[in-house]
Amino acid sequence: MSSSPEFADIRAAADRIRPFAHRTPVMTSAFFDGLLSASVFFKCENFQKVGAFKFRGACNAVFSLPDDAVPHGVATHSSGNHAQALALAADLRGMKAYIVMPHNAPRVKRQAVADYGAVIIPCEPTVADREATTQRVVAETGATLIHPYNDPRIIAGQGTAALELLEEVPRLDLLLAPVGGGGLISGTTLAAAGASPGTRVIGAEPQAADDAYRSLEAGRILPSENPQTIADGLRTSLGNLTFAIIAQHVQEIVTVSDEAIVTAMRHVWERMKIIIEPSAAVPVAALLEDGLHVRGKRVGVILSGGNVDLDHLPFVR
Amino acid sequence: MSSSPEFADIRAAADRIRPFAHRTPVMTSAFFDGLLSASVFFKCENFQKVGAFKFRGACNAVFSLPDDAVPHGVATHSSGNHAQALALAADLRGMKAYIVMPHNAPRVKRQAVADYGAVIIPCEPTVADREATTQRVVAETGATLIHPYNDPRIIAGQGTAALELLEEVPRLDLLLAPVGGGGLISGTTLAAAGASPGTRVIGAEPQAADDAYRSLEAGRILPSENPQTIADGLRTSLGNLTFAIIAQHVQEIVTVSDEAIVTAMRHVWERMKIIIEPSAAVPVAALLEDGLHVRGKRVGVILSGGNVDLDHLPFVR
Repeated sequence: MSSSPEFADIRAAADRIRPFAHRTPVMTSAFFDGLLSASVFFKCENFQKVGAFKFRGACNAVFSLPDDAVPHGVATHSSGNHAQALALAADLRGMKAYIVMPHNAPRVKRQAVADYGAVIIPCEPTVADREATTQRVVAETGATLIHPYNDPRIIAGQGTAALELLEEVPRLDLLLAPVGGGGLISGTTLAAAGASPGTRVIGAEPQAADDAYRSLEAGRILPSENPQTIADGLRTSLGNLTFAIIAQHVQEIVTVSDEAIVTAMRHVWERMKIIIEPSAAVPVAALLEDGLHVRGKRVGVILSGGNVDLDHLPFVR
Repeated sequence: MSSSPEFADIRAAADRIRPFAHRTPVMTSAFFDGLLSASVFFKCENFQKVGAFKFRGACNAVFSLPDDAVPHGVATHSSGNHAQALALAADLRGMKAYIVMPHNAPRVKRQAVADYGAVIIPCEPTVADREATTQRVVAETGATLIHPYNDPRIIAGQGTAALELLEEVPRLDLLLAPVGGGGLISGTTLAAAGASPGTRVIGAEPQAADDAYRSLEAGRILPSENPQTIADGLRTSLGNLTFAIIAQHVQEIVTVSDEAIVTAMRHVWERMKIIIEPSAAVPVAALLEDGLHVRGKRVGVILSGGNVDLDHLPFVR
């Protein structure tokens, strides 16, 4: 299970999750097309179940498990979209989900996971205790650990968003996705390599969490240490599996400032009337920065999710 | 032109505006369906051009004009979505648009209208000066006055949203739309009467601007005097044409509090990940108030628009 997924795994994942996941719409925007003199196709994973692409990977992982694993449940550590995604996917297969989460995680995030029937196991807000707690839960329950991104089943599942986009909108010149732990961009680049080899795949990353950019430059994983960026879904660093895929297949990683992320997010809200989270605005910001030479091109963007806290918005004066 | 429009006029409007207006998507929501034990179909006019259904009516009015009216332009008084809608529609037909707008209208609204190439004529923020200024503009330019709602061409255009919804989702039990000046609900109820006579049409109104509710009770137009509601698109009062249509065809007007409007708007933003304006949340609030007995029913809702000021949101703590 620790080997790199292939294009066939993404196709299989698409079949596997079809009964459970939304085939999300592709939106266009006269505003962005005019601004960029390009044709931009937005794959709206903010409309996916649990409000983010993460459901695809979690669903694929859970429904890939052999029947004899079902009684023992699944486990992960996450306080973000993966936690909710795994909780829902497990519930759909009638499994228990054990979610290790820092005890200081926002109440609204704990509640969302609990609403899907998952068991929440609190830990200290440190990497060491998080991993120790997760290992203890797995040892005690026999649950299958489903890592948020460094897992071939997760990567294959995340790749189904790009696969759907490329089926619906062929011959994209460029395809952009955000980079956090690298699950989405890995799946995206594998999907493009299989379904549309002429499409150039570009990862977009916050400047303040540019571990993928630096890791590719260095040729080895250089994690971000406690990065501070508004794109809270992208603070994680690459794993060995995602690093290897990105190093082999992704043509370019671009970085953008938090200010550019907020501006891009505001444009999408105001002009497209859809809610995207800061992480989803990162590739949009990369487009607006104008270093990608998209004029006259056909560009795909994975809008990764739409989970925001309306009580704490970045553009409220 | 002052006679009441008929179903055939809505069909004609649909053909007339088809090259210019978006056929907006219909969205569903597992959250709302579960909460209400109903099947709810949201017609997303927040995705319409200029961000609101108003473009339908303006477009139909402008493209209904005889060729010899084109050189003289169109005129209206509005600082809201109708102003932008008329400006864009006129621009598409190569006409001038004269928009009378209070001199204290927000800069962002003036700018949006100017961006479509319209001529803005400032007036004092009083009804008397607004009407006097509009009459003067019409007299001086020969422009055709396009009232925001009390006009059969406008009403027929607004009805095309419901017509599209009923074509895509037949056999709705209920269909809800907000009520301001009454153009949208009039067009909606005429569309339903023609396309789906079994569908019960319900207008939803802010309690603080309940002129339609009171007018129907009284049997004559009782305007709201300077109403204070967050639903800024619904502060206008019925005209004689819209009053007559509503009195004849609309089965019920329900009113909701501003608090209920904000709650409903927040639910739509958080659960459906789409941006709607307070006016669009009014029928959603009516659904959530639970007086409509929608359990087991098929319900349509016209989400009228998505133009909000992100710097001044009602649910920011």
